[in-house]
Amino acid sequence: MQNLQKPSVKPYLITRTLNPENQETPIHFIHKDFVSDKLFYRRNHFSYPNFSFYWLIVDGLVNFSRTFSLQEIQSLPSKTVKTVLECAGNKRGFFKPKVFGEQWQKGALSQGIWKGVLLRTLLGFTGVMETAREVVFEGYDFGERTDSNQVTHFRRSLPIEKALHPDTIIAYEYNGKPIPFKHGFPLRLIVPEWYGMASVKWVKRITVVGHEFKGPFQAVDYVYYPKKESDEGKLPVTTMKINSTIQQPLDRKILNTGDHIISGISWTGNGLVTKVEVSVDGGTNWSPVDFERSPERYVWVRWSYKWEVLEKGEYTIMSRAADSKGQVQPPEAKWNRKGYGFNAIDVIRVKVE
Amino acid sequence: MQNLQKPSVKPYLITRTLNPENQETPIHFIHKDFVSDKLFYRRNHFSYPNFSFYWLIVDGLVNFSRTFSLQEIQSLPSKTVKTVLECAGNKRGFFKPKVFGEQWQKGALSQGIWKGVLLRTLLGFTGVMETAREVVFEGYDFGERTDSNQVTHFRRSLPIEKALHPDTIIAYEYNGKPIPFKHGFPLRLIVPEWYGMASVKWVKRITVVGHEFKGPFQAVDYVYYPKKESDEGKLPVTTMKINSTIQQPLDRKILNTGDHIISGISWTGNGLVTKVEVSVDGGTNWSPVDFERSPERYVWVRWSYKWEVLEKGEYTIMSRAADSKGQVQPPEAKWNRKGYGFNAIDVIRVKVE
Repeated sequence: MQNLQKPSVKPYLITRTLNPENQETPIHFIHKDFVSDKLFYRRNHFSYPNFSFYWLIVDGLVNFSRTFSLQEIQSLPSKTVKTVLECAGNKRGFFKPKVFGEQWQKGALSQGIWKGVLLRTLLGFTGVMETAREVVFEGYDFGERTDSNQVTHFRRSLPIEKALHPDTIIAYEYNGKPIPFKHGFPLRLIVPEWYGMASVKWVKRITVVGHEFKGPFQAVDYVYYPKKESDEGKLPVTTMKINSTIQQPLDRKILNTGDHIISGISWTGNGLVTKVEVSVDGGTNWSPVDFERSPERYVWVRWSYKWEVLEKGEYTIMSRAADSKGQVQPPEAKWNRKGYGFNAIDVIRVKVE
Repeated sequence: MQNLQKPSVKPYLITRTLNPENQETPIHFIHKDFVSDKLFYRRNHFSYPNFSFYWLIVDGLVNFSRTFSLQEIQSLPSKTVKTVLECAGNKRGFFKPKVFGEQWQKGALSQGIWKGVLLRTLLGFTGVMETAREVVFEGYDFGERTDSNQVTHFRRSLPIEKALHPDTIIAYEYNGKPIPFKHGFPLRLIVPEWYGMASVKWVKRITVVGHEFKGPFQAVDYVYYPKKESDEGKLPVTTMKINSTIQQPLDRKILNTGDHIISGISWTGNGLVTKVEVSVDGGTNWSPVDFERSPERYVWVRWSYKWEVLEKGEYTIMSRAADSKGQVQPPEAKWNRKGYGFNAIDVIRVKVE
């Protein structure tokens, strides 16, 4: 009989906005180490750029400005980096009081394998002057911001040390294939340990500068503002905080009595995840989880905890991760006006009946 | 250059659970009268059924039990019905205090054009005995519930008058094509005005009965329980309540000063939507919206309101609909333990900067 093939049941990206495109990874349904390009979260500040030829310019405080063709870049020694990318606004929707902007839940987060050339290999060709302080990356994407009538490109900088770090690459492949256009084809900067805004897509130009770069995506956005009405105490958003997400069960799920697996992921921008604990009684008692494999730098560790529940009722389940730099997920996230870096202990509630 | 075609930017279903499959329509991005089958919300109680031949049985308190082939059904006079289908749990995620179950936001709602045969045409072939009180519909889908170890089919009943209503159909087409398997192929009961659980998918058997049907999807689920701990005051879930959803702008959006369009949809199971008003000051002042076309029975009306905003600040935007039966969206939804029928005035908050 027609049409009766086994139906495919699959998760989709979760649409936040279409213009620019902002879509979230269905993180609760990702049970692999690496996210397929189709389910990788999409975070854009502007419409997708249009460009039909491609050269990468490297200039500024260098000994010799250079233009690289894609072919040249791909012929240089390559480096592969497995890393989480997490939007600085991941989990923004959970801040209390609520803040404005895309209401990301837990899926502005993905991870995969990026292959490219070390940025310091490229800068080896051009040389870097002694007065160099930062490296500015300009994407092909541009548009207007609500706070200005001028058209601006997406631009971000890295301190020279991070730019020269042996895991900072200009990538041209994702999971073994050319980077999908929506994720930065042909070249994307990949900055492990930092929140995703640092990993500039569609890199057009790399400029070494001798000053502190102050573009709006660096000095206005992607800044922690602890106060609602003033800019007092502001700090730049850089390294990913220690974090964890319970993937299963889902929040507000109704379960049977019996055995259940509580599973999730933990990640950090500070060395290694060293410990993850789960509480099934709202934070009174904590038990260590089982790691699926030994934690590695840059990537999430998948974990699980076997929960036997015999008594009917409502349960508050929490996960709390710690890293090798001594950071631990706090009970409350540090509120900030633009809603970055939410990393409170993850909390869900289930009913057993 | 390869890969530089214009990227497609599209909304996706929002995954709530995969087994059974529950996915939400990206309702904020639906600006058509009819939702494509790909974006129609999916709400299942069990895994998708497997069946490889198809006959529809009509039996019980009838003069002649009958089995209909699909071909027979499609050869009978047809009726086309345009209707909203809304899951009774639509907007469940907004109840306060929160309730358990799928945390639907605003997209357990779709609408389109169903074509089929009137149920009363089929019952005309079998005859209906005078003692008939309800008609029970059994779907091919079955499985275990958390409250029982027995396997049960999805079954729901309609009072005989609703079953014989001249718009209650056994549908075989959606939007001009055979109903997609996930939405009930080959035959789906369509019950306008009632919440979606009444529109049984994969209809296998129709049985006329002389008693009140008490299956678990009728007497346990799809019941309003106003109390948390007791069943006192319970009432069956039937007709859709008057409701509205602001589609644009999105909640927590940051806007410029200037002109903006506030747009949305309103629908009801009670006659016609007669009035929709918008407030941009948190409910102090209300203005009528413009309807895209005259409201029709069963379908949502799309509306818009032009908002000129000159002053920076935070704004609370609300929409409130009323229908021809005198129902008006209340400021607070009527809390009930299983979270059905949320229809409070829709509220979003935006920041103008």
